[in-house]
Amino acid sequence: MAARPQPRYLPVSGQAPHERGDAARNRNLLLDAARRLIAERGAEAVTTDDIVAAAGVGKGTLFRRFGNRAGLMMELLDEDEKAFQQEIMFGPPPLGPGAPALERLLAYGRRRLDFVVAHRALMADVNRDPYARFNAPARVQHRHVSVLLAEAGTTGDVDAQASALLALLDVHYVHHQLTENGHTVQSLGDAWESVARKLCGT
Amino acid sequence: MAARPQPRYLPVSGQAPHERGDAARNRNLLLDAARRLIAERGAEAVTTDDIVAAAGVGKGTLFRRFGNRAGLMMELLDEDEKAFQQEIMFGPPPLGPGAPALERLLAYGRRRLDFVVAHRALMADVNRDPYARFNAPARVQHRHVSVLLAEAGTTGDVDAQASALLALLDVHYVHHQLTENGHTVQSLGDAWESVARKLCGT
Repeated sequence: MAARPQPRYLPVSGQAPHERGDAARNRNLLLDAARRLIAERGAEAVTTDDIVAAAGVGKGTLFRRFGNRAGLMMELLDEDEKAFQQEIMFGPPPLGPGAPALERLLAYGRRRLDFVVAHRALMADVNRDPYARFNAPARVQHRHVSVLLAEAGTTGDVDAQASALLALLDVHYVHHQLTENGHTVQSLGDAWESVARKLCGT
Repeated sequence: MAARPQPRYLPVSGQAPHERGDAARNRNLLLDAARRLIAERGAEAVTTDDIVAAAGVGKGTLFRRFGNRAGLMMELLDEDEKAFQQEIMFGPPPLGPGAPALERLLAYGRRRLDFVVAHRALMADVNRDPYARFNAPARVQHRHVSVLLAEAGTTGDVDAQASALLALLDVHYVHHQLTENGHTVQSLGDAWESVARKLCGT
C-alpha cells in the first residue's frame, strides 16, 4: 500500500484570533442560545427566529456572523467536536492519557456513542454529504482509534480495523440501530466493546 | 437486546410477471444499452439520449417504462444486485455453498469489493440518502455475512461484526480509500481479509 498522509489532530482553538469584542460576545450569545434550545427541544424544532429571540440580538447579527442556520449549526458541532477532542487527548483517564490503551479504547467507544446520540440532528445535517464521513473531525477519530489499537498491541491492518470500529459509531448507523433494530445505547455500547475486544485479541 | 425482524433474501425474479411482450423487449433493449454504455464510458457520462439512441427505441418508451434516468439506473442496479445474490446463494464455491464458511466469507469480501467498484456511480447515486445503506439489498449482504460468521464459529456479537465488515465495503468508503488514501482494490481486499480473519479468530 502506498504511503498515506497522516491526518493530524485539529488545532484546538475557540474562535478566530482577531474577532472584535462585540462580535465575539454576540457569537457566544447566539451559540449559547442555540445550544440551550437544542437541549430543550431538539435541533429540528429550533428556528433562527427562536435563536435570535433567546440570544437577545438582531436577526441580521446571526446572518452576518454565521451566514445561515446551517452555518450556525456547523459551528456549534465544530465547537463540541473540539471539546470532545480535548477530552480524549488531555482529559482524565480512562478516556484521556494515563490508562492502558485497551481501557482508553473502550472508554472512547462509550463516550463517542453518547456524543453521537446527543448530536444526532446536528451530525445528520452535516453528514448528509456521504463523504463528510471522511472530513477533518472524522479523521481525528480515526487517528485516535488507530493509535489506541496499535498501542494495545493489535495485529493486522490497524487502519481498516479503526474504520470498521468507527462505522459502528456512525450517526446514521447508530440512529438506525436505535430506531429500527431494537438496540439501546447500552446494547450498542456492549456490541462495540465486544468487537473492539475481539480486534485487540482479548 | 430486543428480538429483531430477520431480514430475508429478496425474491430473485427478472421482472414483473405480466409485462407484455413488446414492453418486456423494450425494457431489455434499454437496460442492455445502458449497461453497455456505462461499461464503455462510466455512468456519469451516459444520458437518456445516448441510451435511447443505442437501444433504437423512442425517448417516450424510456420515460413510460422507467419514469426517468434515475429510475432506469435503479432498475439496472437492482438487476445486478439480484444476479450477485444468485451467485452468493446458489453459485459455485467458494462464493456459493459447498466451501467452508471462512473461505466463503473471504471470497465474498473480494467479490463484493469488485461489485462495488464496478457499480460505484450507480450505487453512489442510489446511496445519496444515508439511510439507503440499510435498504433491502444491504440487509441481504448483512444477513449473508452474519450467517457465514456464525457458521465459521465466530464468537461475540455477530451482527455488529457483520456491520463493521460491511462498512469496509461501503461504496463511499471504498471510493475514498481508492482516490484519497492510496489504496488499490487488491490492498483493500487484503485489509478486508485481515479484519475478517481476525473476527473469525484465525
